[in-house]
Amino acid sequence: MAIPVLLDCDPGHDDAMALLLAVADPAVELLGVTTVAGNQTVEKCTLNARRVLSLAGVSHIPVARGADRPLVRPLRIADDVHGETGLDGPLFEGDPQVPEASTCAHELVVDVLTKHDAPVTIVATGALTNVATLLAARPDLSGRIDQLVWMGGSTERGNVTPYAEANCFVDPEAADQVLRSGVPFTMCGLNVTHQALVTDDVLTAFAGIGTPLASICVEWMTFFASTYKQLWGMTAPPLHDPVAVARVIDPTIVRCVDANVMIETEGTWTAGATVVDLHRYTGRPSNAQVAVELDRTAFWTRLVDAVTRIG
Amino acid sequence: MAIPVLLDCDPGHDDAMALLLAVADPAVELLGVTTVAGNQTVEKCTLNARRVLSLAGVSHIPVARGADRPLVRPLRIADDVHGETGLDGPLFEGDPQVPEASTCAHELVVDVLTKHDAPVTIVATGALTNVATLLAARPDLSGRIDQLVWMGGSTERGNVTPYAEANCFVDPEAADQVLRSGVPFTMCGLNVTHQALVTDDVLTAFAGIGTPLASICVEWMTFFASTYKQLWGMTAPPLHDPVAVARVIDPTIVRCVDANVMIETEGTWTAGATVVDLHRYTGRPSNAQVAVELDRTAFWTRLVDAVTRIG
Amino acid sequence: MAIPVLLDCDPGHDDAMALLLAVADPAVELLGVTTVAGNQTVEKCTLNARRVLSLAGVSHIPVARGADRPLVRPLRIADDVHGETGLDGPLFEGDPQVPEASTCAHELVVDVLTKHDAPVTIVATGALTNVATLLAARPDLSGRIDQLVWMGGSTERGNVTPYAEANCFVDPEAADQVLRSGVPFTMCGLNVTHQALVTDDVLTAFAGIGTPLASICVEWMTFFASTYKQLWGMTAPPLHDPVAVARVIDPTIVRCVDANVMIETEGTWTAGATVVDLHRYTGRPSNAQVAVELDRTAFWTRLVDAVTRIG
Amino acid sequence: MAIPVLLDCDPGHDDAMALLLAVADPAVELLGVTTVAGNQTVEKCTLNARRVLSLAGVSHIPVARGADRPLVRPLRIADDVHGETGLDGPLFEGDPQVPEASTCAHELVVDVLTKHDAPVTIVATGALTNVATLLAARPDLSGRIDQLVWMGGSTERGNVTPYAEANCFVDPEAADQVLRSGVPFTMCGLNVTHQALVTDDVLTAFAGIGTPLASICVEWMTFFASTYKQLWGMTAPPLHDPVAVARVIDPTIVRCVDANVMIETEGTWTAGATVVDLHRYTGRPSNAQVAVELDRTAFWTRLVDAVTRIG
Ligand SMILES: [Ca+2]
Ligand SMILES: [Ca+2]
Ligand SMILES: [Ca+2]
Ligand SMILES: [Ca+2]
Repeated sequence: MAIPVLLDCDPGHDDAMALLLAVADPAVELLGVTTVAGNQTVEKCTLNARRVLSLAGVSHIPVARGADRPLVRPLRIADDVHGETGLDGPLFEGDPQVPEASTCAHELVVDVLTKHDAPVTIVATGALTNVATLLAARPDLSGRIDQLVWMGGSTERGNVTPYAEANCFVDPEAADQVLRSGVPFTMCGLNVTHQALVTDDVLTAFAGIGTPLASICVEWMTFFASTYKQLWGMTAPPLHDPVAVARVIDPTIVRCVDANVMIETEGTWTAGATVVDLHRYTGRPSNAQVAVELDRTAFWTRLVDAVTRIG
Repeated sequence: MAIPVLLDCDPGHDDAMALLLAVADPAVELLGVTTVAGNQTVEKCTLNARRVLSLAGVSHIPVARGADRPLVRPLRIADDVHGETGLDGPLFEGDPQVPEASTCAHELVVDVLTKHDAPVTIVATGALTNVATLLAARPDLSGRIDQLVWMGGSTERGNVTPYAEANCFVDPEAADQVLRSGVPFTMCGLNVTHQALVTDDVLTAFAGIGTPLASICVEWMTFFASTYKQLWGMTAPPLHDPVAVARVIDPTIVRCVDANVMIETEGTWTAGATVVDLHRYTGRPSNAQVAVELDRTAFWTRLVDAVTRIG
Repeated sequence: MAIPVLLDCDPGHDDAMALLLAVADPAVELLGVTTVAGNQTVEKCTLNARRVLSLAGVSHIPVARGADRPLVRPLRIADDVHGETGLDGPLFEGDPQVPEASTCAHELVVDVLTKHDAPVTIVATGALTNVATLLAARPDLSGRIDQLVWMGGSTERGNVTPYAEANCFVDPEAADQVLRSGVPFTMCGLNVTHQALVTDDVLTAFAGIGTPLASICVEWMTFFASTYKQLWGMTAPPLHDPVAVARVIDPTIVRCVDANVMIETEGTWTAGATVVDLHRYTGRPSNAQVAVELDRTAFWTRLVDAVTRIG
Repeated sequence: MAIPVLLDCDPGHDDAMALLLAVADPAVELLGVTTVAGNQTVEKCTLNARRVLSLAGVSHIPVARGADRPLVRPLRIADDVHGETGLDGPLFEGDPQVPEASTCAHELVVDVLTKHDAPVTIVATGALTNVATLLAARPDLSGRIDQLVWMGGSTERGNVTPYAEANCFVDPEAADQVLRSGVPFTMCGLNVTHQALVTDDVLTAFAGIGTPLASICVEWMTFFASTYKQLWGMTAPPLHDPVAVARVIDPTIVRCVDANVMIETEGTWTAGATVVDLHRYTGRPSNAQVAVELDRTAFWTRLVDAVTRIG
């Protein structure tokens, strides 16, 4: 039976690929999509989520708008990485077919968690603002969350400051609150998503699918590659967000270890660092599963299959 | 026409008196009561709120339970001030007549804000956890809040650490988020509530009402006086929380000035300080009305009248 | 026998008066003057110290230049209070008679502490940068310091931010290190120096001395009064620094209580606050004598006598 | 002509090897040794420095005792790594031949910097407490320091907390002050010292020297290997401190890049992190040379040669 999933995202090129994987992989059933400010404003991210679902020909999954800024800090978007639309590359015009839900993200999630017959997995591929707010407003619903799998953080260096990854840097207070809530938590950080590099053979595989959607995927990943090359000098960009979805689909694709993770919210130069105690220096108990290794072959196969399946 | 009010509280002796004032003063219409952990656990505070409304013979006002702990920090109760029940003094037994609402505080407030025909005033006499969470989950409803009047903070010294007042110290992150939200904010801090001392003539006035409820009020204030004398050596205790209700009932009772208020959330020794820039040292714009002076006569008259009116 | 004293200062109008008191009061013997950046740059403060000693006709007391900036933070001068020279008011021209010592402040203090036959009292009327550095470089000399009496801090509100006084705000890390060093420490904060207001009768008393030096003192205090009026609306300015000297001269002039004092170095809005636990909220042991009450009559008498004695 | 060097250390096994290298390599002339609390108390570290120089048969180099604790934080020793003596392994008894200087570290360094005819290089292989204090007390001498080469920090993860290396973690405030002072600064962090692993062939090379001193070196490195194996599961321990000496001896042995380095002093979970902006995320200008690559062959050759030369 498919695992029921809510996807909380800020599309974003890699979010777009994560959406396609969540829509089409038979191991999961996508119950709803919520958006959060991060890669771009929440308006643009919401529009992009609707565009991606429309491209996938999916009309039954509600898309609801969430937080327009982090809990405490001012919003810092990543238009240097994702462009002015948040999903630059192929040109889109007009309003996508899939509408925005009439309820806000908070209402949609409460509704799904309350009504679904089994606990639901939340996959978050942006800042954790919406999740933190949900857990604060409705702690009575935490038992309805099977687990939270997050693309964010790093066990090593960061990608917006020396020690902070973007999704954590945008709203460290939210990440801190979510980790303290006790909801089962898995972190897929840069250390593992940098194993999901879009190399030429990956692009070739997608191009080989031969559908219009696959061509758009190639365009997205090519744009993403260009900004990664420009900003970090990387020859192949890491496709972060689908890694979190893959972890839900098949845990063997993303090997994890138990560890204590603390979120730095106060550091002058380190705010947003995910402090992962892999060597048990601190004596604090494990509070998370931390992804450390990706089965690259299985990962890309699953993603290519998903795009192929959509047609 | 009466001003529609939600009271968010942690009874607490002074919260109890604030509840009676909000129930009985004709200038306000109490639409609901929500509770928050602070003076005691949220379970005990909720029970106390129900007890007070039961004593007042009020059964139409819903009482809903809110946050059981601050956003980030561990809960620190004030049983040294309010006793083991949170409302020590007169003995209560059994379950009060007024029930707990079937919905949680968040749902109740969303419901009231959504359905009431005019914007509603929130009076908060505890930590701001519930209010912060509401504004984060449902920013679309901020326009439905006419203003927030808070008992908390201080322009001078504190009462739990040298510079922090209890309601702010319990959840400084919540206070910080609420102030940043832009909701019209009035702070009634220790500097003004220490002008509301329960002196002997105040006790005499309540005793003179001659009702069983008035006797209970005297017992509450007498217990409160005993802990204030023991902890701070004060001969008359300050009756903090009704000051915030009085500000809504008649703004002339509590004179305010415009000022910039920032909440210290990071200080090693000052976390929970309300940093009120009365002398405009910082150049930051005003973001709050800050109470500076109490019309004692009008205040006590209004409170005695309320208890008298309940009968 | 006179108490041996080193005066570490940043003249500054009130420092100038403190210098005159230390020079002329028979209860103390001034062994040296060191300067520190604060009210103005250390260059200007050193020139001012030399000017004041020259006016007092004193040529045997060495004046040595100390730190040109705080330990960690950038320097923030107070030219709004003390003017462009740091000692605005009467006009001075040319180089004062008293020269600058050939050694730096650190060397002078080490020399005095090492060679004087008894432990020496340090009176500090500026930021504690020099003292912190001394204690770090030469902890072996801490036993040669009889006590440190500081004008700085506050038990109430501050004068540069809501909770920070200027001498502490300029270098909170230095104050923190000095307090942690264990050297006997007395703090004369705003709460007591605001009892040393230069009212009209004070000015009249100084004018009555009838010497050129007394006229200059009146000019200094008149200039100081003008900036205090402009910046804080005070009708009479507090003459902070001589209070610390007076405490050494006669402890009964400045009544103190034992208390725990912690320096806030990390607060976002409260850095530089002196967190004085007058009510023993925190359970931390006393580490300082904190001035709480000034004998105004004795204070002003002593200061007028000193200026009179110089002639 | 040999480069004049002061070595500030906390021996420590790797400090001991650094001392031997500084004593015997012809490219440098060791003018003095100062000690600082870190690996062990400053008493034990000073005794160890004297032992090492005695073993090397060197009696003309003064050894002076420095700070017994960090600037602000309580001392945290590393007896889990270096044992109860700070230099566990071979057994020593009695008092070493080389005496402790009659002056403290601060006085020794001031004396050397003042009197040596050319600027002097300081190599620091412990916490930067002494250097920070020197620069604060005698900023006039900063021009007498040719450069500061420090073993400390990391561009990646740490070795006492996830992001902090021991020498920085012990006294982050000192490191911060030194970096802000503007003295030319080179950081040899874990990322490069973990390229100096004491593998079996290294031990064999030292054993092959055949002198009693070489045997003691083998015993030290064998003890060091045992604690590294136990604490971190590493099969060969990194010999950190000689890397900093090697950088002075021959810059080509330790390749460096220019980068901005900030020291985290405020983080809750990250205090002591060296935040090295290798990818220029922050836009802050370079303020340090950061070691990134070790020429292993040249490094070990130089160290074996030094021990051989001592005899
Ligand atoms: Ca994303
Ligand atoms: Ca209350
Ligand atoms: Ca001064
Ligand atoms: Ca070392």
